[in-house]
Amino acid sequence: MTRGFYIGRFQPYHNGHHRVVEQIATEVDELVVGIGSAGDSHTVRNPFTAGERIMMITKSLVDFDLVTYAVPIEDLDRNAVWVSHVQSMSPRFDVAYSNNPLVIRLFNEAGIEVRQSPMFDRGVLEGTEIRRRMAEDDDWESLVPGTVANVIKEIDGIERIQKVSDSDSNGEDPYPA
Amino acid sequence: MTRGFYIGRFQPYHNGHHRVVEQIATEVDELVVGIGSAGDSHTVRNPFTAGERIMMITKSLVDFDLVTYAVPIEDLDRNAVWVSHVQSMSPRFDVAYSNNPLVIRLFNEAGIEVRQSPMFDRGVLEGTEIRRRMAEDDDWESLVPGTVANVIKEIDGIERIQKVSDSDSNGEDPYPA
Amino acid sequence: MTRGFYIGRFQPYHNGHHRVVEQIATEVDELVVGIGSAGDSHTVRNPFTAGERIMMITKSLVDFDLVTYAVPIEDLDRNAVWVSHVQSMSPRFDVAYSNNPLVIRLFNEAGIEVRQSPMFDRGVLEGTEIRRRMAEDDDWESLVPGTVANVIKEIDGIERIQKVSDSDSNGEDPYPA
Amino acid sequence: MTRGFYIGRFQPYHNGHHRVVEQIATEVDELVVGIGSAGDSHTVRNPFTAGERIMMITKSLVDFDLVTYAVPIEDLDRNAVWVSHVQSMSPRFDVAYSNNPLVIRLFNEAGIEVRQSPMFDRGVLEGTEIRRRMAEDDDWESLVPGTVANVIKEIDGIERIQKVSDSDSNGEDPYPA
Amino acid sequence: MTRGFYIGRFQPYHNGHHRVVEQIATEVDELVVGIGSAGDSHTVRNPFTAGERIMMITKSLVDFDLVTYAVPIEDLDRNAVWVSHVQSMSPRFDVAYSNNPLVIRLFNEAGIEVRQSPMFDRGVLEGTEIRRRMAEDDDWESLVPGTVANVIKEIDGIERIQKVSDSDSNGEDPYPA
Amino acid sequence: MTRGFYIGRFQPYHNGHHRVVEQIATEVDELVVGIGSAGDSHTVRNPFTAGERIMMITKSLVDFDLVTYAVPIEDLDRNAVWVSHVQSMSPRFDVAYSNNPLVIRLFNEAGIEVRQSPMFDRGVLEGTEIRRRMAEDDDWESLVPGTVANVIKEIDGIERIQKVSDSDSNGEDPYPA
Repeated sequence: MTRGFYIGRFQPYHNGHHRVVEQIATEVDELVVGIGSAGDSHTVRNPFTAGERIMMITKSLVDFDLVTYAVPIEDLDRNAVWVSHVQSMSPRFDVAYSNNPLVIRLFNEAGIEVRQSPMFDRGVLEGTEIRRRMAEDDDWESLVPGTVANVIKEIDGIERIQKVSDSDSNGEDPYPA
Repeated sequence: MTRGFYIGRFQPYHNGHHRVVEQIATEVDELVVGIGSAGDSHTVRNPFTAGERIMMITKSLVDFDLVTYAVPIEDLDRNAVWVSHVQSMSPRFDVAYSNNPLVIRLFNEAGIEVRQSPMFDRGVLEGTEIRRRMAEDDDWESLVPGTVANVIKEIDGIERIQKVSDSDSNGEDPYPA
Repeated sequence: MTRGFYIGRFQPYHNGHHRVVEQIATEVDELVVGIGSAGDSHTVRNPFTAGERIMMITKSLVDFDLVTYAVPIEDLDRNAVWVSHVQSMSPRFDVAYSNNPLVIRLFNEAGIEVRQSPMFDRGVLEGTEIRRRMAEDDDWESLVPGTVANVIKEIDGIERIQKVSDSDSNGEDPYPA
Repeated sequence: MTRGFYIGRFQPYHNGHHRVVEQIATEVDELVVGIGSAGDSHTVRNPFTAGERIMMITKSLVDFDLVTYAVPIEDLDRNAVWVSHVQSMSPRFDVAYSNNPLVIRLFNEAGIEVRQSPMFDRGVLEGTEIRRRMAEDDDWESLVPGTVANVIKEIDGIERIQKVSDSDSNGEDPYPA
Repeated sequence: MTRGFYIGRFQPYHNGHHRVVEQIATEVDELVVGIGSAGDSHTVRNPFTAGERIMMITKSLVDFDLVTYAVPIEDLDRNAVWVSHVQSMSPRFDVAYSNNPLVIRLFNEAGIEVRQSPMFDRGVLEGTEIRRRMAEDDDWESLVPGTVANVIKEIDGIERIQKVSDSDSNGEDPYPA
Repeated sequence: MTRGFYIGRFQPYHNGHHRVVEQIATEVDELVVGIGSAGDSHTVRNPFTAGERIMMITKSLVDFDLVTYAVPIEDLDRNAVWVSHVQSMSPRFDVAYSNNPLVIRLFNEAGIEVRQSPMFDRGVLEGTEIRRRMAEDDDWESLVPGTVANVIKEIDGIERIQKVSDSDSNGEDPYPA
């Protein structure tokens, strides 16, 4: 039995992520999806809460033929203990999936195998683009699974991202974050 | 569509919890299982990590006929913001299940419906008893689902609880916690 | 101009505290009332939020003939930096009022004058007794200023303390705190 | 009885803020002034401690014909729980005043009424300008209430802001913050 | 080259610890002394700051014939990441020395060799006894190295422990900790 | 007896720092080297853990004719309590050495003497340059003591800094920090 760990921020979970999961599904029996920066929300870069992202991911993976876990990972701001933190919040895993150099390095120093994938970078790029489209009322729905579009509508996600986008032009008093 | 939220420490997830979930399953379409004190582990009272408890719960609920989410909830030590914290970590829910007076009060002050259940207290009592049996090599397997027993064996859980049980008699130097 | 600093938890602000303030008012021109353990609330020992305690104190001092400040002080759990923390949250003060040996010691090591008062201990004792009376529907109103009684009623304080009092008998699952 | 909540960083409290308070005073019976980023100090952007800002505000509002509270709000770096945090630190309020899009959004998602004011933006702009003038020994006193100017002199505020302004040119070793 | 790691609270560093170090010195080339609960001070159980304990240890080991490091380890309250935390704060080590069952378990789960010693328990017992003697003006000097006695006198340590000992009888208002 | 406190990030400890220590050694009897941002590691700007930096410093100072202490100082993100934090983690000191304007100001407000040195700025500049050389496989060994070069090789430091340098070009998903 092989269990994989795939880490991302998933703001939102989109088609790029979904294709990566499809590929990982051919390599493992179970998959943990780690939701990074779980405590962040309501910003342009991190609009959705951990709970909202859990819902996006769980709904999108429900028909996959492997056991999946969606696990929020709060930031610790301590790189040296981050791998232990992840390991304590996640079911035990055999291999990690990431294209982020820092994540790869941290897992490697801890002796954990990391696999990369050519699709990761494209997925990564889509995150910023999708949030820009959401903020500017451009087409974003075609870039995410239908389940994710439903979640975003249910939580009024587009209105939120458009509202908080205005904060950037207001440098003096960015409360609260 | 109704989504319920059931909060516990699940150290470990046992038959008492399982019967509660069976009952809740008749009332809701989806269920979030919130794993409290998610950051605690390796103590007599909280032997298992959040990841291990996620595994116990997910494996035990896999055949249930409702969508389930197992969500770790780290302690904030701020009662006044705890409900918001839970809400940000969990898919949106309509009703909370708990028999803990503080939890009930906090949800009520936030205007969230809470339902109690006569089985909760029995489940609660079993937690301490199960950990005592684990520590003393008494029969504990009959009190948990088979999936949970498998997880505990896979992670060497009995050895861990027996080892850390010895800490209690050593008052001077309880590092690290 | 002399400014005093009087630290307490004020759970709730009661007649014992009020008499102490009356005495301090004869010694200083301005008074900072520091509300300790500001982040704690909704427990038997700390039922009221910082905001509720600010309201009790400000309303009770409104007719005093000295400038007063009610300042919440969140716990840092680091005794060695506590005085600096207090100083950064409070208007600058010349003398501190406390009967707590640890507080006295910390201020003294920082070179700050501390004055004690025979009334402090009595006030201290009343805190526990007042909360017991609140929990058991005994007479508590005669022990607090009328302004405080009004605040407690406005916020449904008695119901809260009675509800969370039940938590103590439930040792297994004290979420969230 | 209506209680308003006005949130700002007040670095320092200046004439723009004061005019806003004058306007709010016509709409509410009591006003809570929330001091954001209360834990920050000794930087170019946040030169003054929470205690110093409490003093500026309390002294400036002493002659207003409404009950006022000056309440420090420490950052939590968790947008999703920020409103609960504010509510626990503040006397209960009916309406919030802010022009910050993120703050407005967070209060709105929590079901709290927010009012904006055309003066806010001007006040906001003045904050940066006033600190620039302080750092460069330009005229700043005309932009703040006389009470604020006195506080800043009492605490040697100009010297502090001029000293820490030099830090910006020194990118390598910005201890401690 | 073998480097050992010896963890304790060292409140204070006493003859029992010193004998343990003497024994470890025969087994390793370099020794890291980890000072646990480094953030605690000014309580009966943890009277001395990390800095004061560093001084005690460094002065006592100065004549030992091995390279030594005295490293403060702040508590994280997360057992599952504690070993990583220790490893990031300490020079890399090959073997850990402890008699605490929890510490042993955590190091073992991380694959780190732990050695126990019959003297540890005696040393452990002496900690409480030495602090009792300090609090009650009993003979304590004979139980610690002369260098430690000098440090304790230089920092007025006996007066501190006697003062904060009085706090225990005052259950109502234990600010700040 | 005079004890000095020299604060830096020491990423890595290099010849510029070493020359400063040589100068300080002529002015004091004992020297505490405070390692700032102790919790940071595995980034381009802060590649080395506190433990690795302790090793660099201790090895480099072993032949100096003064008692030295290498003390990690974790960030608190609260300028107003930073001096107290430093004082609690360090043996008591009489004079601080720094060229950082913020550090100087904070120590001055706390009444602690600070001495500057013309060499500091040069040392500061070298930090960035040395890390650039490490990342680009340029000559860096000539800029650090031989003992430091050995530590960096022992811990595979060059590979680490080269790997995490790649992270900067990947703005979307900088987990975990």
